[in-house]
Amino acid sequence: MKTISRKEEIIATATRLFYEKGYTAVSMRDIATAMDIKAASLYNHIKSKQEILSEIILKVAKEFTDGMVSVVTENTSAIKKVEKVIELHIDITVNHSEALAALNNDWMHLEEEDLEAFVKMREDYEENFRIIIKQGMDAGEIKSYHPEVILFSILSTLRTLYLWYQKRGKVDVNILKKDMVSVLIKGIV
Amino acid sequence: MKTISRKEEIIATATRLFYEKGYTAVSMRDIATAMDIKAASLYNHIKSKQEILSEIILKVAKEFTDGMVSVVTENTSAIKKVEKVIELHIDITVNHSEALAALNNDWMHLEEEDLEAFVKMREDYEENFRIIIKQGMDAGEIKSYHPEVILFSILSTLRTLYLWYQKRGKVDVNILKKDMVSVLIKGIV
Repeated sequence: MKTISRKEEIIATATRLFYEKGYTAVSMRDIATAMDIKAASLYNHIKSKQEILSEIILKVAKEFTDGMVSVVTENTSAIKKVEKVIELHIDITVNHSEALAALNNDWMHLEEEDLEAFVKMREDYEENFRIIIKQGMDAGEIKSYHPEVILFSILSTLRTLYLWYQKRGKVDVNILKKDMVSVLIKGIV
Repeated sequence: MKTISRKEEIIATATRLFYEKGYTAVSMRDIATAMDIKAASLYNHIKSKQEILSEIILKVAKEFTDGMVSVVTENTSAIKKVEKVIELHIDITVNHSEALAALNNDWMHLEEEDLEAFVKMREDYEENFRIIIKQGMDAGEIKSYHPEVILFSILSTLRTLYLWYQKRGKVDVNILKKDMVSVLIKGIV
């Protein structure tokens, strides 16, 4: 049986509260109350609300980064790589939609160093996506449209997926993967 | 020569300020200062900051609604209609990116009646898009993927376009239209 540490429990509780009320509206006291412990004892495990936010955001950002690095370095076609990037986004969305909400809504509240780390991860991620698109164009697998239009068209859908999945969602994840891969890569006709 | 009314001037100034500082951070006094007039004289033309927001958002929402209604009722193929919807979004994005920022970031600050009107327009818009997709599937023009996946994949890109266009943008609008229509309809392969 997996046991979770007190710190992980704090982070899990905060993730849910940030999601329900918004990061700025939640206090350390609210987190303690939700866990039925004293606010003071939170500080044995974590320094500040910003540290909690940073743990939430950088963890999910690292999943994207690691997943992307693993895809981009694979010895396979560019189209297969795009397909895997789409599946990576769907997996993270389905498993961590509340953390993704924090990432998208509250990244600007990160402390300076963490903010820099986050922005760098985001830029590296986009840059790796560009490398895949270029690989595909060079190999004649991907049509020569403006590469930024391709990057944006795919990424905008993947990055807002968590919003749609929360609202409309509960589409079977396998249908979602199959159809979204098809629509984004092969279009609708 | 086109002359603009004082009210239009107030709305134009507010649109820019809301865009630069965020709706909640801007006061009626800020708007007056930017126009080099007295705050009190704003109220000869407009009731409140919320009324300004409502004018900005409902005007651009109406452009979407009217454009969509005109497309959906045309006697043409579903794919041609999807193409026209994409072009409609690009035109509005290029011409009204600051108003679109207000629409996306601040619609929840609208007063009750305007909020209802806005949500209704947004739902009708999506519903009309669904009708086009269904028409296309019935006619065998659009592949039978999950219709909500198609709707979301296209709309998520179109609705966040203003963010990308502001940041990366200045892609020639004709290339943007041509390539985005191709990528969203025919995919990247």
